[in-house]
Amino acid sequence: MSGELPAQVRVVGTGLLGTSLGLALSARGVDVVLTDPSPTAQALARDLGAGRFASPDDDPGLVVVAAPPDVVADVVAAELLTFPRAVVTDVASVKAGPLESLRRKGCPLDRYVGGHPLAGRERSGAVAARADLFVGRPWVLTTSAETDPGALTLVRTVASALGGVVALMDAGEHDEAVAVISHAPQVAASLVAARLRDLPDQAVALAGQGIRDVTRIAASDPAMWTQILAGNAAAVVRVLRQMQTDLGELLRALDAIADGSPTGARATIAGLVCEGNRGQARIPGKHGGAPTSYASVVVLVPDRSGELARLLHDVGAAGVNLEDLRLEHSAGQPVGLAEIAVLPAVEQRLREALRELGWNVHG
Amino acid sequence: MSGELPAQVRVVGTGLLGTSLGLALSARGVDVVLTDPSPTAQALARDLGAGRFASPDDDPGLVVVAAPPDVVADVVAAELLTFPRAVVTDVASVKAGPLESLRRKGCPLDRYVGGHPLAGRERSGAVAARADLFVGRPWVLTTSAETDPGALTLVRTVASALGGVVALMDAGEHDEAVAVISHAPQVAASLVAARLRDLPDQAVALAGQGIRDVTRIAASDPAMWTQILAGNAAAVVRVLRQMQTDLGELLRALDAIADGSPTGARATIAGLVCEGNRGQARIPGKHGGAPTSYASVVVLVPDRSGELARLLHDVGAAGVNLEDLRLEHSAGQPVGLAEIAVLPAVEQRLREALRELGWNVHG
Repeated sequence: MSGELPAQVRVVGTGLLGTSLGLALSARGVDVVLTDPSPTAQALARDLGAGRFASPDDDPGLVVVAAPPDVVADVVAAELLTFPRAVVTDVASVKAGPLESLRRKGCPLDRYVGGHPLAGRERSGAVAARADLFVGRPWVLTTSAETDPGALTLVRTVASALGGVVALMDAGEHDEAVAVISHAPQVAASLVAARLRDLPDQAVALAGQGIRDVTRIAASDPAMWTQILAGNAAAVVRVLRQMQTDLGELLRALDAIADGSPTGARATIAGLVCEGNRGQARIPGKHGGAPTSYASVVVLVPDRSGELARLLHDVGAAGVNLEDLRLEHSAGQPVGLAEIAVLPAVEQRLREALRELGWNVHG
Repeated sequence: MSGELPAQVRVVGTGLLGTSLGLALSARGVDVVLTDPSPTAQALARDLGAGRFASPDDDPGLVVVAAPPDVVADVVAAELLTFPRAVVTDVASVKAGPLESLRRKGCPLDRYVGGHPLAGRERSGAVAARADLFVGRPWVLTTSAETDPGALTLVRTVASALGGVVALMDAGEHDEAVAVISHAPQVAASLVAARLRDLPDQAVALAGQGIRDVTRIAASDPAMWTQILAGNAAAVVRVLRQMQTDLGELLRALDAIADGSPTGARATIAGLVCEGNRGQARIPGKHGGAPTSYASVVVLVPDRSGELARLLHDVGAAGVNLEDLRLEHSAGQPVGLAEIAVLPAVEQRLREALRELGWNVHG
């Protein structure tokens, strides 16, 4: 499972992920070769320190294809042909379609390992790249019956060295998983946010933390998401159809209530919210562990430079480790609420310590 | 528009909102009378310092009905009858249905002002109450043709004194607004979260910040949300039908792509994501002002007690005011990313100051 990093890695595509890979591998002494169809993007990645341009003598041990999902299979096929001794991987967020396409082309699948580091950002391009992009993030590797174990070990070594948390799946499992945990949430966020477009200003002003959170990822790039959703169409359809069915049932229940014949309708509504409770509770806690119930301490923080720092300093001085922190915005008032999540065992001690120091502690 | 607080306020219902009202008004010297159908809930609110029990001589200037939406009209009607000199308001999250019901009963609507402080929490009950619950939150007041201006002034004075940001609407406008900015997001969060229930563990482990944010409010109380959605059924149906239409179009586009006949399908997908971009951009920035574009500075923070405090101390010491802070969780690694939002004018100065102090600055 462990091994040495390849001496030379070729990165095809110098967007956010490709450039971040180049930065991270270069920092570890790997000879990184950069190439991109756009000369400007390629030069930018080099100038940022992600690697060097290609030369005729290149002999990469690994090629990483960081191209958009709709061309990834073609680019992987070309790289397998051009570098017959190299292992080839990619970083595309859909896996079954490209694999099928490579198989149809008769490519040597023993040297191909599918990859998907779940390390996207709302920003894209080389300028948003960073060497630590993969640290602590899941990095799915997908294999087929043909995959050479040595090829898998090589890609796994690279993913781990860059801080990724490797998960092995087959391509279909991967696509079903991301349809639920990434693609459906994106669609839901867009559907809700789209309703805000024509809302009166006075109504928009009522927006609170709930809709902010639900719609945050609705700010994502339409071109990128069109490719992702189109590239995983079949799996995304399966998830969205289930949501459509649930939504249809909810609408029938609400219609019945609006029409004054609500028999059983309230049970349908409560049932959906309960299902949501159960699903939401499965999301892992911090650091990928099992869900942990943290205790929550709410502190009123004056909106002045340094106040939040002073609060967190006092938390640290109390010897308490902060597990999570959420700030709540206050419309029109110079005050914020900091919700500090801590282990239940230290909650009471923290409350007392902060109160003694004059903090306005709630929750 | 301004005025004095009433000397005596009767609070009917000592859950989260009623008890918080009692705490806030008691702290301002108001004689608060508490009543709740549950003797236990009523005693708890009193013991928390939210007010005293009722007595036969009570003569409240204002009655606040903080009862569940499905009984609010009956309780308001009873209070209008019992206290013929008092102004009566409520805090229910739906407004048109109760008003219609009061009108049908022939209640004196001149003394009734509908109210809805948007100050809910994921936790409920008197134990979660706090006197500052309303600070900086929108507080909608709904009036009808019958409303006495003096009654409106009284309720407005109370809402403002408790820190609420008052917005005047008619009941229908209010219900349409909250259907979009509160009820539809809740439904969307539940629909997405419900898909997680039967997902394999390995797939759930891929969950990142996106789905966390989208599904956070899916943890809310099913009983409460059943009442809210049922109480605003007609307006919620209108919003959800539009989402259903958008979802149907998206599904047709994805089906066409999966079937290999994708003419125009990608434009449909991109169109939905674009609409989401536009809607999301309308959500007000911090403090209820116009949306502001903040610059974002990303810093790698070791997951050790006190590190985040040290970082924020350094931000404060650089004379920079932090506008927002987001922590990103890292699965399986002892490191976190703090994304600090600041005004663009100070971004560069902050980056340099933090780098000089040895921080690992990105973004």
